[in-house]
Amino acid sequence: MAIRTAAQYLEGLRDGREVYYRGERVEDVTTHAELGIAARHAAIDFELAEDPAHRDLALQRDPDGSEYSAYYRVPRGPDDLRARSRLIETATAEGGTLVILIKEIGTDALFALMRVLARSGETEGLERLQAFYRHCRDGDLSLAVAQTDVKGDRSKRPSEQDDPDLYLRVVEERPDGIVVRGAKAHTSCAPNVDEIIVLPSRSMGAGDEPWSVSFAVPVNTPGLRLYAADFLHGTDDEFVYPVSSRHKMIETLTVFDDVFVPSERVFFSGKPQIAGAVALTFVEFHRFTAVSYKLPLLDAFVGCGIAMAAANGISRAGHVREKLTWLAGYAETVRGLIQLAAQRGQLEEGIAYPDVFTTNLAKWTFARDFHVALEFLQDLAGGLLVTGPSGQDWEAAQVRPVLEKYLRGAWPARDRLAMLNLIGDLTTRAYGGYQAVLAIHAEGSLEAEKLAMYRSYPAGEALGYARRLAGLGEADDR
Amino acid sequence: MAIRTAAQYLEGLRDGREVYYRGERVEDVTTHAELGIAARHAAIDFELAEDPAHRDLALQRDPDGSEYSAYYRVPRGPDDLRARSRLIETATAEGGTLVILIKEIGTDALFALMRVLARSGETEGLERLQAFYRHCRDGDLSLAVAQTDVKGDRSKRPSEQDDPDLYLRVVEERPDGIVVRGAKAHTSCAPNVDEIIVLPSRSMGAGDEPWSVSFAVPVNTPGLRLYAADFLHGTDDEFVYPVSSRHKMIETLTVFDDVFVPSERVFFSGKPQIAGAVALTFVEFHRFTAVSYKLPLLDAFVGCGIAMAAANGISRAGHVREKLTWLAGYAETVRGLIQLAAQRGQLEEGIAYPDVFTTNLAKWTFARDFHVALEFLQDLAGGLLVTGPSGQDWEAAQVRPVLEKYLRGAWPARDRLAMLNLIGDLTTRAYGGYQAVLAIHAEGSLEAEKLAMYRSYPAGEALGYARRLAGLGEADDR
Amino acid sequence: MAIRTAAQYLEGLRDGREVYYRGERVEDVTTHAELGIAARHAAIDFELAEDPAHRDLALQRDPDGSEYSAYYRVPRGPDDLRARSRLIETATAEGGTLVILIKEIGTDALFALMRVLARSGETEGLERLQAFYRHCRDGDLSLAVAQTDVKGDRSKRPSEQDDPDLYLRVVEERPDGIVVRGAKAHTSCAPNVDEIIVLPSRSMGAGDEPWSVSFAVPVNTPGLRLYAADFLHGTDDEFVYPVSSRHKMIETLTVFDDVFVPSERVFFSGKPQIAGAVALTFVEFHRFTAVSYKLPLLDAFVGCGIAMAAANGISRAGHVREKLTWLAGYAETVRGLIQLAAQRGQLEEGIAYPDVFTTNLAKWTFARDFHVALEFLQDLAGGLLVTGPSGQDWEAAQVRPVLEKYLRGAWPARDRLAMLNLIGDLTTRAYGGYQAVLAIHAEGSLEAEKLAMYRSYPAGEALGYARRLAGLGEADDR
Amino acid sequence: MAIRTAAQYLEGLRDGREVYYRGERVEDVTTHAELGIAARHAAIDFELAEDPAHRDLALQRDPDGSEYSAYYRVPRGPDDLRARSRLIETATAEGGTLVILIKEIGTDALFALMRVLARSGETEGLERLQAFYRHCRDGDLSLAVAQTDVKGDRSKRPSEQDDPDLYLRVVEERPDGIVVRGAKAHTSCAPNVDEIIVLPSRSMGAGDEPWSVSFAVPVNTPGLRLYAADFLHGTDDEFVYPVSSRHKMIETLTVFDDVFVPSERVFFSGKPQIAGAVALTFVEFHRFTAVSYKLPLLDAFVGCGIAMAAANGISRAGHVREKLTWLAGYAETVRGLIQLAAQRGQLEEGIAYPDVFTTNLAKWTFARDFHVALEFLQDLAGGLLVTGPSGQDWEAAQVRPVLEKYLRGAWPARDRLAMLNLIGDLTTRAYGGYQAVLAIHAEGSLEAEKLAMYRSYPAGEALGYARRLAGLGEADDR
Repeated sequence: MAIRTAAQYLEGLRDGREVYYRGERVEDVTTHAELGIAARHAAIDFELAEDPAHRDLALQRDPDGSEYSAYYRVPRGPDDLRARSRLIETATAEGGTLVILIKEIGTDALFALMRVLARSGETEGLERLQAFYRHCRDGDLSLAVAQTDVKGDRSKRPSEQDDPDLYLRVVEERPDGIVVRGAKAHTSCAPNVDEIIVLPSRSMGAGDEPWSVSFAVPVNTPGLRLYAADFLHGTDDEFVYPVSSRHKMIETLTVFDDVFVPSERVFFSGKPQIAGAVALTFVEFHRFTAVSYKLPLLDAFVGCGIAMAAANGISRAGHVREKLTWLAGYAETVRGLIQLAAQRGQLEEGIAYPDVFTTNLAKWTFARDFHVALEFLQDLAGGLLVTGPSGQDWEAAQVRPVLEKYLRGAWPARDRLAMLNLIGDLTTRAYGGYQAVLAIHAEGSLEAEKLAMYRSYPAGEALGYARRLAGLGEADDR
Repeated sequence: MAIRTAAQYLEGLRDGREVYYRGERVEDVTTHAELGIAARHAAIDFELAEDPAHRDLALQRDPDGSEYSAYYRVPRGPDDLRARSRLIETATAEGGTLVILIKEIGTDALFALMRVLARSGETEGLERLQAFYRHCRDGDLSLAVAQTDVKGDRSKRPSEQDDPDLYLRVVEERPDGIVVRGAKAHTSCAPNVDEIIVLPSRSMGAGDEPWSVSFAVPVNTPGLRLYAADFLHGTDDEFVYPVSSRHKMIETLTVFDDVFVPSERVFFSGKPQIAGAVALTFVEFHRFTAVSYKLPLLDAFVGCGIAMAAANGISRAGHVREKLTWLAGYAETVRGLIQLAAQRGQLEEGIAYPDVFTTNLAKWTFARDFHVALEFLQDLAGGLLVTGPSGQDWEAAQVRPVLEKYLRGAWPARDRLAMLNLIGDLTTRAYGGYQAVLAIHAEGSLEAEKLAMYRSYPAGEALGYARRLAGLGEADDR
Repeated sequence: MAIRTAAQYLEGLRDGREVYYRGERVEDVTTHAELGIAARHAAIDFELAEDPAHRDLALQRDPDGSEYSAYYRVPRGPDDLRARSRLIETATAEGGTLVILIKEIGTDALFALMRVLARSGETEGLERLQAFYRHCRDGDLSLAVAQTDVKGDRSKRPSEQDDPDLYLRVVEERPDGIVVRGAKAHTSCAPNVDEIIVLPSRSMGAGDEPWSVSFAVPVNTPGLRLYAADFLHGTDDEFVYPVSSRHKMIETLTVFDDVFVPSERVFFSGKPQIAGAVALTFVEFHRFTAVSYKLPLLDAFVGCGIAMAAANGISRAGHVREKLTWLAGYAETVRGLIQLAAQRGQLEEGIAYPDVFTTNLAKWTFARDFHVALEFLQDLAGGLLVTGPSGQDWEAAQVRPVLEKYLRGAWPARDRLAMLNLIGDLTTRAYGGYQAVLAIHAEGSLEAEKLAMYRSYPAGEALGYARRLAGLGEADDR
Repeated sequence: MAIRTAAQYLEGLRDGREVYYRGERVEDVTTHAELGIAARHAAIDFELAEDPAHRDLALQRDPDGSEYSAYYRVPRGPDDLRARSRLIETATAEGGTLVILIKEIGTDALFALMRVLARSGETEGLERLQAFYRHCRDGDLSLAVAQTDVKGDRSKRPSEQDDPDLYLRVVEERPDGIVVRGAKAHTSCAPNVDEIIVLPSRSMGAGDEPWSVSFAVPVNTPGLRLYAADFLHGTDDEFVYPVSSRHKMIETLTVFDDVFVPSERVFFSGKPQIAGAVALTFVEFHRFTAVSYKLPLLDAFVGCGIAMAAANGISRAGHVREKLTWLAGYAETVRGLIQLAAQRGQLEEGIAYPDVFTTNLAKWTFARDFHVALEFLQDLAGGLLVTGPSGQDWEAAQVRPVLEKYLRGAWPARDRLAMLNLIGDLTTRAYGGYQAVLAIHAEGSLEAEKLAMYRSYPAGEALGYARRLAGLGEADDR
């Protein structure tokens, strides 16, 4: 099958899927007043592939002449990783700082599963996975990944919870498949994709067999129900929400109410030893994706800071330069580290993966300083961020002249307010809060990133050097 | 006149004042769907004085038997400052972390004007001010302060701006008063008060006479127009906005369109040398008020952190304890410093004022770590902050059971979601952004606070000690 | 006995005590080239009591006419705590930023033991302790406290160590006393005091009886051996070490080689349940002392910063003002918090103790920002800190004129170098490193301080407030 | 001439140069008890070139068969920059974390001069420089760079100083050369090199002609006098100073007392417009060198942290892992950024120079977090850093057994003390202070690095993106 158009993609979402939003069943996610915005945002991925300016980046042509979305290209080395990073960054920039994600995360999951299943000698699972991969690639499908279990009491393991369903599990084995029950939290884009891949969310041990399962199903599978979050609801004033009135991503509580999964869609089941490796490997791939798609937001921060300082007439103040320099340094450190992670990519089982330590360092650097960036931008912008006019004010004939007269800075009021509202949207209103929480929690917490760094740091060299300086022989003291 | 009731206060706001909201003229600020919430929030001040539990704190009884709102008590020493701080903190706690402010800021301005006018020997202005003070106190009036000019290009002085109206100024002197033109930005509570006090916003020099003016007028004065910000618009879902659906404060762009001010309401005019002193002294008083009213928010942060850790079952994790300890230390440092500022209060012209260095240290400490607190709370709460259900979901019969089953933690889903939504309201949604921007900009920026610290630090002792240690004689090297 | 003079104190140290320094036995600690400096520094305590300017602060006169060192005054309320703090601060300022400590820490230990023994109903131990207290007070004795065990492998409890002596323990019980063996690390001032009080260093449990012991012995007790650290060795150039050439404190590895302790000097033995309470209570008292004696160092930092900026001619630079403001804010926050800790002091068993949460908050605030202060001072001072001339250069006739010509700033070379060398001594050379390590480790680590804060924070109020805001009933979720 | 041996190099330093140390004239810098250590440290550069393991890195063989020190290779692209960085890092690692610098900094100056003179069309100066370059390269000479003027009052320009000599200047023009007077501060390695290159230290304007001069002279030129700092004096105990007892670098106050410089050694004179460009360009090259030579120190920090945690038995504590992870992240961020700076190197006038923004970002990242690293290492090591035994204690027969028994951790006492002493040397004693001050001041202050970042940041892309998001057209608002 050829590459799909945006229209074909949207048409594919009208399949009877069971989606709930603000307490009600949604008939058609593509025409719904709010969810439709998210669907059209997702469609940017397909538009990109149609756009001559981005075609080379967005499409892969194999030697045999076949052509498919570049997201599906299995990376074979640093160049592929770099190209993948650039593609994700470019698409996100087109998405107004909001990632598209309908192929990014799914292929992260596919590559991670490929590697772990190959390494573990899980031949049957690997064959099923390869078949599913070809199905998605050749059908130019969009994918969500449901990983994070709802988890209940975090101090307890799956089998210790009061309700065993608090981690998704197999409740019945049938000759032709399995039946699963449970719920996954914050599944991004689920209402706007064709297929959902399910992965375990943590390491498992003996006794955790029912929870050690991975599979994929179409979104309209019976028993699969999506309860969509409305966090970005109400961002309909284009004046004050220049980004979030046009770009949305929807997360769902994804409930599997005794969903039947046919055997050919089960990648593994009942295998605790594989569950943890998959959970971890997926996140390793996915954090590389994550940092790649954070870059446009950080660039926007820097640009907003420079623009706002100019609009307010404060560019020459020492503390303003200090903040602008910090913002630029922050953005470029994250960008630099993710470029290095690609460059240091290593090949295993035929798949190149970005360097784990460097990727996590990049992600952690991004996450730990994000709120400082918010503070600096809010500082540069001024109190008008929360006391400025609404779009209705701007449109009102009796109000706009007042605003034009009194809200100018070194820039005219219109331009200055446009920049203020952009900063407000990115840092002070719902979308700002959304990005702030994603910075901390998406793709794993800061604690998880630090743990990954700790585990992947090649301690030998530094340790050996310290021991030599101390006059001691070599030894591994970690 | 006796103390007014909340009903009397609200009735007083129905006086034909010219208020605009979302592009339209507001007929009655007390019954308007959104502004009415702010009016009722402001009325908490009057309810407090009626409440036996708070009466002693909220009312002042003079030896002559007269009784008036304790906000109007001129502080005569540390005890009065402490009582004032406690009153402000208590009222804000009743206001759900949102300051009431309809008497706090106005009396800050009155006390500051009293001190500067007395010190400067401005007898006539002082008499007018005292008369106005008695009018407000005896009428139990509510007050707003319009200080911050819209300022245009920040790199230019008032007289250098392209439009001289970008700082409020006197455009005409008449035998019985003055006519003023200009606009003040982010005037808090203006639609919900009886009188507006106008102060200059910066130091002035020779040539700045027209901009060196201070006065007070009733809000329904002809030519005075309030353009209200709608930043907290749309926070109507009580489930996800437990605080901001019930508590609002409104800021206005306050436009003086050739407003006539009778002489007896003009405190000074054409006096640059007084303008700067008033601007600064007001802020010194007001930062003490500000830190006092930040305390309930900080306490809420600590309490939310502890509660959320329990609800999620993560209280025993090391990094969780670290964050909770940090939050408690942050809140208590700010509280401790403002207590010290009161204790170190000094008397001048019969008015006690909190120690300037310590007050600014408290405010700066509050402001510079605020975004860290946001980050920690968001970290403790989890991604559900932005992917959780809406009130409509919770009310829907087909959805709530799913949420109850799957969104429980170590607490039941209802309680856990209540705490999550509180944190979301305080840190991630509009009210959180509002508080974040106020932390940075209200009562002066971080830079202004540092400058005040630098100027008020009594360097002599530390410098003398360093010189002695270095074997040098004493000298002032500052 | 009357108050002792400095000479009497020094004479008392010549008692055959077994002290080792740089590999050799020290004959007389008062005349030794390096240790003598420490002895004379310690004597400042006695000089202070003789100095009319400090007499009132340094001496306590009881209603019965008896007079003794104010360090021995049992605090009965906030006023006593404040006076104690001021005394410690004053003595340290006289000591050139270096604490005297020969009565401070010992009385901390005595007060802590009094409280715990009284609370625990340990009548016999309490009587012995009271007798020892009177002995010290009436004899105007100086005291060291040996608490920190050498600890071996930190991941193991006392009874799990390969060598049971790695925590000090009772090896023999005799009718008239006990025999102890073990070593305590970094005992401050041990060579320069009359008596050493031994305390356990951690909580103990069942099975830890031999390690649960507390007692006091004279320093010249047979079997007690002090191995003195030479960290401040070589700071003999008064030009570059204006402080540390004149002021030293000595820490020892304090070895108890089967030392016999008579029964009347044993405060408790074999009581694990008391051991932990004593260890903790001592540290609570001692951190209050610690913060009190850090203040002169912080004042010196601020004063050095201001002076150095003047000397270099950089006082008007924005980043310089920023750093000076930060330094002042840091010093005053620590000072403010310790004043509050005194003010919030609580009485138990007749002894006032400073508020635990506030004391630890003060100490943690001091410790966590200390290295930032070092950085800022080094930044303000300039590279000459490590490339400047030696005292020999300054004394050399052929060199000094060159230095005078070329090393002047906005100050003459002599004064500028004096201030540079003071900063160098305080931040860049051995004494600076000494203070840096003490900031982190003395009186417990930052982790210990945070743990104390976590445990002592009165969570109820904040938690209750958060629950009310969330619409939940009250409950303790900690 | 062939590559010189270490012996030949040392022999070359015995040329009658006028060096003062601790107030006395030094006869022979190679045999002096303390300076000799610095000379032998410098000689590591020559040993490296003789060492088969490093020969390929240390030597450059040109197509014409000529062979010379790789430091003299003019970089032509990213590969050369990377190789140069690796060479500097390797030599520094051999130097025990202390840079060698006798060719690094000199070639930085030569390359910077080449670029600026070529760009400015200064043909004559460029020819003289090329001749000098060949002289140094072919003679395998060692070089120092004297740049930082002593500067006097920092608030004044050269011509405003009370004494015009406070910036080095031309006092006489002769037919065959110039006579210069003045002093340069902290010239590294001056006593141990063959030639000194003099550069201006700041931008100059009209009227600053006498101070706008650059030249090179042999160290034994008459009138050139070196006053060496003794900061690392006294680090002779190999037990407690494992690094600084063996490795030293010497800075001098470098005085030009009417030194005659022949015309062929004058690169430019009386040209203010060139002075600033040279000062800046040199620093751009030199910061790349600087970050390269900081890496071994950072690696040592990480290794010491890991080793010390193991030695103390605290590797499993959460806060310990947190600190180790931070240290590794810090080191690798700096390393990653400097690799990127090389990779992004740009060619101009035939010379590749590292990307300015990225280089400064790397340097600033290194410098701003250095004191945090010190704190973490001191925290991990423990109080024994300042209370531990001396080398004399360890050697004493009566003391060592006590230390062996009581100062063991999870490691034997000997190994644990070796690691403690290494950390003490690197962070707590003189060498630690030396490195701390270098981190802040060497190669320009943090403020200078931030200014360089601000100026070199390519703002257009981020700004354009922000403007597009805000719905505004493109414009340069910087």
